[in-house]
Amino acid sequence: MPNVYDVTDWSIPGSSVTCYTDLGAIINNMIADIKVQQPTQASKPGAVIYIPPGDYSLKTRVVVDISYLCIKGSGHGFTSSSIRYNSGSTTGWAEIWPGGSHVRVENTDGNAEAFIVTRTGNPRLSGIEFENFCLDGVSFTSTQNSYTNGKVGIRFASDTDSARISGMGMVYLEHGLVANNVDAMSVTDNFIAECGNCIELTGAGQATKVTNNEIGAGFHGYSIFAEGHLGLLVAQNNIFPRGKDSVHFKNCSLSSITGNRMHAFYPGMITLEGTCPENLISGNHLYRQPETYGPFQSSNNGLDDLFGLIQINGSNNSVIGNHVSFNVAAGSITPSGSTPTMILVKSGDGNYLASNHFTASVSVKTVVLDGSTTNTHVLDSGTAAQLQAYSTSYGFRATP
Amino acid sequence: MPNVYDVTDWSIPGSSVTCYTDLGAIINNMIADIKVQQPTQASKPGAVIYIPPGDYSLKTRVVVDISYLCIKGSGHGFTSSSIRYNSGSTTGWAEIWPGGSHVRVENTDGNAEAFIVTRTGNPRLSGIEFENFCLDGVSFTSTQNSYTNGKVGIRFASDTDSARISGMGMVYLEHGLVANNVDAMSVTDNFIAECGNCIELTGAGQATKVTNNEIGAGFHGYSIFAEGHLGLLVAQNNIFPRGKDSVHFKNCSLSSITGNRMHAFYPGMITLEGTCPENLISGNHLYRQPETYGPFQSSNNGLDDLFGLIQINGSNNSVIGNHVSFNVAAGSITPSGSTPTMILVKSGDGNYLASNHFTASVSVKTVVLDGSTTNTHVLDSGTAAQLQAYSTSYGFRATP
Amino acid sequence: MPNVYDVTDWSIPGSSVTCYTDLGAIINNMIADIKVQQPTQASKPGAVIYIPPGDYSLKTRVVVDISYLCIKGSGHGFTSSSIRYNSGSTTGWAEIWPGGSHVRVENTDGNAEAFIVTRTGNPRLSGIEFENFCLDGVSFTSTQNSYTNGKVGIRFASDTDSARISGMGMVYLEHGLVANNVDAMSVTDNFIAECGNCIELTGAGQATKVTNNEIGAGFHGYSIFAEGHLGLLVAQNNIFPRGKDSVHFKNCSLSSITGNRMHAFYPGMITLEGTCPENLISGNHLYRQPETYGPFQSSNNGLDDLFGLIQINGSNNSVIGNHVSFNVAAGSITPSGSTPTMILVKSGDGNYLASNHFTASVSVKTVVLDGSTTNTHVLDSGTAAQLQAYSTSYGFRATP
Repeated sequence: MPNVYDVTDWSIPGSSVTCYTDLGAIINNMIADIKVQQPTQASKPGAVIYIPPGDYSLKTRVVVDISYLCIKGSGHGFTSSSIRYNSGSTTGWAEIWPGGSHVRVENTDGNAEAFIVTRTGNPRLSGIEFENFCLDGVSFTSTQNSYTNGKVGIRFASDTDSARISGMGMVYLEHGLVANNVDAMSVTDNFIAECGNCIELTGAGQATKVTNNEIGAGFHGYSIFAEGHLGLLVAQNNIFPRGKDSVHFKNCSLSSITGNRMHAFYPGMITLEGTCPENLISGNHLYRQPETYGPFQSSNNGLDDLFGLIQINGSNNSVIGNHVSFNVAAGSITPSGSTPTMILVKSGDGNYLASNHFTASVSVKTVVLDGSTTNTHVLDSGTAAQLQAYSTSYGFRATP
Repeated sequence: MPNVYDVTDWSIPGSSVTCYTDLGAIINNMIADIKVQQPTQASKPGAVIYIPPGDYSLKTRVVVDISYLCIKGSGHGFTSSSIRYNSGSTTGWAEIWPGGSHVRVENTDGNAEAFIVTRTGNPRLSGIEFENFCLDGVSFTSTQNSYTNGKVGIRFASDTDSARISGMGMVYLEHGLVANNVDAMSVTDNFIAECGNCIELTGAGQATKVTNNEIGAGFHGYSIFAEGHLGLLVAQNNIFPRGKDSVHFKNCSLSSITGNRMHAFYPGMITLEGTCPENLISGNHLYRQPETYGPFQSSNNGLDDLFGLIQINGSNNSVIGNHVSFNVAAGSITPSGSTPTMILVKSGDGNYLASNHFTASVSVKTVVLDGSTTNTHVLDSGTAAQLQAYSTSYGFRATP
Repeated sequence: MPNVYDVTDWSIPGSSVTCYTDLGAIINNMIADIKVQQPTQASKPGAVIYIPPGDYSLKTRVVVDISYLCIKGSGHGFTSSSIRYNSGSTTGWAEIWPGGSHVRVENTDGNAEAFIVTRTGNPRLSGIEFENFCLDGVSFTSTQNSYTNGKVGIRFASDTDSARISGMGMVYLEHGLVANNVDAMSVTDNFIAECGNCIELTGAGQATKVTNNEIGAGFHGYSIFAEGHLGLLVAQNNIFPRGKDSVHFKNCSLSSITGNRMHAFYPGMITLEGTCPENLISGNHLYRQPETYGPFQSSNNGLDDLFGLIQINGSNNSVIGNHVSFNVAAGSITPSGSTPTMILVKSGDGNYLASNHFTASVSVKTVVLDGSTTNTHVLDSGTAAQLQAYSTSYGFRATP
C-alpha cells in the first residue's frame, strides 16, 4: 500500500538495526524514503507510519521535517511507573512496564528528544499527527521520584500549523510534549501523566486547543503551561496531581480555561503570570488537599498558601462560576498561622470575579486584592469578611 | 505483523468455531496466544485485536485479563432497534439490524457479559482500550420495550487504571458499560443508546472522565450512573431520553457535571443521592417534557414532580449557570395539582445555587429547600415566590 | 479481509480509472460491490473504505446509500491554501498543496458534491462515518480570496441517524459539511477552515453535537450554522476568523452554545435568527477585532456595530458567564460615531443575561433591549450607563 509504512517490516540497507533495537533510526530511514518517493513540490501527501503493539527502544532522535506525517500506534499503553517503583518487590507482578505501542525513550545520540518536528524555509510544517502510542522515559534520575531525566517525548521546534496529538500515552519523561510556536494545534484525548512536565506550549501561538485529556505532572513541573498564546482553549481536561500548577499561563491573552477538573496538592493551581489580559476562567472544579502519597510528602512546589489557588496577573480577566474546595488542616498551612488565599488578584485593572463558590476546612480569604489592582469587580464570591482588599479601587457584592 | 490479530483470520486448532459462530471463543483464544507469545514479565506490550465490519455472534464471554489489549473495529454501527421493533412490518426495509463491526451478544455460556475485564494480583490492569465497534443485545424480553434482557456489553470487574472506551456503539443491552473501581478511565465519543442502562461506574474511583458522548437509556435505567467517585468529570455529553436519570451520582464527591445537554421525559434528571459533597453542576441545559413516543407513554421512572429535576443530597455543592426548561401541561403534573419542583435541596449545608435560569409552562418552584438544610445560598435563581423554603437557614437574592 | 476496501487496490472491470484519476468512480464501484456482497436484508454490516495517504482526484460524486459505511484515511492534511495563494512566488516552497489522505474535489460530472449521503425508503441511513481524510476544493473562483467555487465536501441529503464526522480536514470548499435533517450526528475533532462555509446543519434535527473542532469560514459564510434544531450541543470549539458568524442559529430551540472560544473580525458572532427560544449561551470567550490580514481588509460580512456581537431573537434564552473582548479603534466603528452593541436582545420575552463580562477599547453598550422585548433580566452584565433599553419591561442589576 503506497505511503503506508510499518516499523516491524522495515530495514536499513547495510544495517542490522531493527525497530526493536532503534526505532528512531528506522523511522528516520522511512522519512528519507518518503522524500525519495515524493520528490516533487506538487505532490507531497506525506505518509502514515504504523507502530504495532510491541516494545521498542528508541536510541536515535526522529527528525520530522515533512508535512502530513501521521505516526500512529494501537495503544497508549500507560501504566503507573510511580506505583511500581515505590512498591518494593515486584517479582510477583504480571507485568512491570508500560505497553501498547510502547516506545522506550533511550537516546544514545546525545539528544534529549524522542521526536523533534523542525524544518526551515517555507511553508511552515502542517498537518502532522501523533496518535495512540506510548512514549516511556523508563526511569528518572537520580531517584525515581525526582521527575527529572532530561528526556523529551515530542518537541515542535519550528513553526507549525494544524498539528494533532491524540490518544497518546506519555510517562516518565521530564517533558512530555513541548510545542514552540504552534498555531491551531489540537491536543486531545491523551493520557500524559507521571511526567516532569506534561504539556508546554512555548514561544507564541494562537487558536490551539488542549481538550479532553487526562493529565498530571510532577511536583515541580507544569501539567499545562502556555506562553505567549492568544485564543488558546484549555477545556474539559481532568488534571490530577501533582503538578507545580494545573494550568499556568505566562503572557497569554484572550484565552480560556473552561470546564476542567483540577486536583492539586499545593497552592498555585491556576496561575496567570506576567501580563495576561482578557482571559476567561470558568466552570472549573478546583480541589486542593495535602499530598496523600507517602513517598512525595516531603516534596512540594515551594509556594505558600498566600500565593492563591488562583493567581491573576493582568487586566480584564474573567473568573466566573468556578467551584473551589480547600481541605488542608490548620496546622499544615504555610506560613504558619496565616489565612489561606483562594484567589489572589496580584495586578491589573478591571478583573471580574463572579459566582465563584468556595468551601474550606479552615477560615480563608476567598479573594485578595493587591494594593496595585484597580477596578476589580468581586461578585457573589464570598462574604465581606472573606475579602481582603489592599486596594480601595474595587466593586464588591457579598454572597447573600 | 506481530501483536496484530484479525478475528476473520483466526481459527482454534481442532475446532470448527469461527468469528461468525462465536466471536468470544475466538478472542479468548487470541488472548491465550498473546500470553504464550509474551511469556516474560519484562515484555508484555499487549496487542490489538481487529474486528472488521461484519456480523458476528458472540456466544462465549471474553475474559480480558491482560493489560494493554486494544480491541477495535471500523464502525459503531448504531441504528435504532426501538424504531424498528415498534414499526410493524419491516419487510420493505433496506436493512433491519445494527451494523459496522457488529457483535451480537448471544451468550450461551451462562454469563451475562460479552466482555469482562478482570484479573487478580498486581498490578491492576492498565491501558485497555475498546474502540469503534458495535455491541448489540439483539432483543429485549419479554417485550421489546422492556429494556431488560440481563445482557452486559462490557464489565470492568477488578481494579483498572487508564482504560479507554471510545467510538463504541451499544444498543439493546440491559447494561452497556459497567465499570467497577476504575481510575482515570476515559469514556469519550461513544454512541450508547436504547440500553437499559448506558454507563454505570460502580464501587469507587477517581479522575475518570465521561465526555463528548451521545447517550440515552431506558425508562427505568441510568444514562450515566456513578458511585463513590471523586474527581469524576461528566462533560459535554448529549444525553437524550429516556433514562430514569440523565446523570445520577451516589455518594460521589468533588466531581463535575458541566456543559452537558440533557433531555428527559420524567423528573429526576440530575440526582445527587446519599452523601454527595462539593460537586459542581454548571453550564448544563436541561429540558423536561412528557413522553413523546406512543409505545412508551405508559412507562416512566416512578418519580413525581416534587422530586426535582435536580435533587441535591449533600453539602457544599455548586449549581451555577444552568438553563432549565420545563414543558408539561398542568393536567399532567403529579401529584395532581401540585407545583413542580425544579431544584430540590433535600439535605446538606452550604450548598450554593447561582445564576440558574428557569422557563416553565406552568407555575413552578424553582428552588425548594428541605427543612433539614442549612446555610444554602440561592442567588438569581428565581423570584421570591418561586422559592419554597422549609428551612430558615439560607441566603436568598431574587432574580431582578 | 472481508468488508475492508483499499482504494489503491481496486479497479473497475473494463475501465482504466484508478483512485488517482477518479476516486469517486472507484468508491462508487466499491459501494456497488458491497451491495452485491451483502444482498440480504438481515445482514448488511457495511464496510470500511480506506484511503491511504496520497493525492487523489475526485471527478465523480460518491453516492453513499448504504448504512454503516466508514470511509477513513490517515491524515487530515490541512495546510493553509490562503497563505500560499496570497504569498506571491512559492517556487522555493517545500510543498504547496494540502496532503495526508488528500482528495482533490474536481468534479467533472456536473455535481457540486464530493460525497452525498442519500437514500429513499426505510429505514433512514444510520451509522455512517467519515474519518481522518482531507477534502480540498483546490481553488476558488474567480479570485482565490472569493471563498466561492460551488463545491461541497459532504452533503447529507436524506434523513440520517448517528452519523459521525471526526478527524477530517476540509479546505477551500464553498461548503464543507452540509447536513440536512440529521439526528444525533457527531461532528468532533475536525479541522475545517478556509471554506466558504464550514458546518451547515439545515432542515431540522435533534440531539446532534458539534464539539472539539477547529473551525473558521470565509468572510461571507457560516463557521457553524444550524436551522430548526432542537437539543444541539455546540461546545468546546475553537472558532477562528473569518466567518460571517461564528455560530448562527435559525429557528433553533433548546440548544447550547457552551465553552467555545470565538475570534471574529466583524459584528454578529453569535446570532439567534428568526424564532429561537430557550437556548443556552454560556462560558464562551468572544474576541472581536478588525481584520488583520491585508488581502481581506476590504471584505466583511456587511453588518455594522449596532448589530451586536451577540444578537438574540426569541424568548427565554440564557446568556450566562461569557467573556466579551471588543478591540476596534473608534475611527473604524460603523455607523461612524455610533456606540457599538455587544449584546442585542432584538425580540422576545423572558431572556436572561447574567454574569457576562465585557472589556472594550471604546465606550460600548453592553446590552441593548429592543422596544419589542419584554421581561428581560439583565444581571451583572455592565453598568447602568452601558444598558440601552428601548423597552421598559425588564429587570436590571448593574455590575457593582
